[in-house]
Amino acid sequence: MSFFEDTRLGARHSLGTFTFTAEAIKAFAQAYDPQAFHLDEEAGRQSLFGGLAASGWHTASVYMKLLVADFLRRAAAAKAEGRAVAQSGPSPGFKNLKWPRPVLAGDTITYFYEATSMRLLASRPGWGIVFGTTTALNQRGEVVLFFENSVFLPCRSAQA
Amino acid sequence: MSFFEDTRLGARHSLGTFTFTAEAIKAFAQAYDPQAFHLDEEAGRQSLFGGLAASGWHTASVYMKLLVADFLRRAAAAKAEGRAVAQSGPSPGFKNLKWPRPVLAGDTITYFYEATSMRLLASRPGWGIVFGTTTALNQRGEVVLFFENSVFLPCRSAQA
Repeated sequence: MSFFEDTRLGARHSLGTFTFTAEAIKAFAQAYDPQAFHLDEEAGRQSLFGGLAASGWHTASVYMKLLVADFLRRAAAAKAEGRAVAQSGPSPGFKNLKWPRPVLAGDTITYFYEATSMRLLASRPGWGIVFGTTTALNQRGEVVLFFENSVFLPCRSAQA
Repeated sequence: MSFFEDTRLGARHSLGTFTFTAEAIKAFAQAYDPQAFHLDEEAGRQSLFGGLAASGWHTASVYMKLLVADFLRRAAAAKAEGRAVAQSGPSPGFKNLKWPRPVLAGDTITYFYEATSMRLLASRPGWGIVFGTTTALNQRGEVVLFFENSVFLPCRSAQA
């Protein structure tokens, strides 16, 4: 995460890429979503998905994995340059989470974040809230995950 | 899942209960959300959460686990009684997902579903859509997860 002031509205930022192997799809499904089309190739082919499909919660959890990895990369870069690193606050939640298309075994998904609006918090001086969208695209550029989220970020000016 | 006609609006249905052990919290976090407060007791205590806290995506994924188990239980009961079992359609997504309070190691969470509105689909004869809320409560009755979702369900009448 970054400081509130570092937010650039409208700039699409890649969080990273993940290839959903059949093994990873089945391992997540065994633990959290044991429906046949997430566990078995043939059942997937016969389903609406048309193939072994990742659980939607798997697709969402991989977003979190990449978000954390992106933060750690950016924190390491900031530290190497002697810049301060902001710890973001908690997320109040998500809006309008959609899985418009399935993620099938072998698909490579790239996750993007774009900040769309921001404001200072009157109720919590030194902090702001940033609203944005997260979009995940497969190798054909089709959207497989979309949601709107928000995050509390500290102001650099308040930490001086 | 059930048929569209079996939906009872306003009836709160328990999907089941899950105790979040420290081991389960850390295992999910290692794979999908490796932030310190999800991985380490001391880091959790020093965070806003006040203890080792489950990833919000873990709390959501356990919902899916319990939903599937509940479906399998109900399908087995229906089969034993010679009743037909409906296969639900895909979920179009979720709205307003919130994590109002953390889930800490040792917390026992119960998930509830309540259907709040329903309508037939003009565009897809023989199918309806049911809107509802999912709420997860800890052992003190505090809400730790909430979202609105919808699901496509087949009509029994159309399958005759």
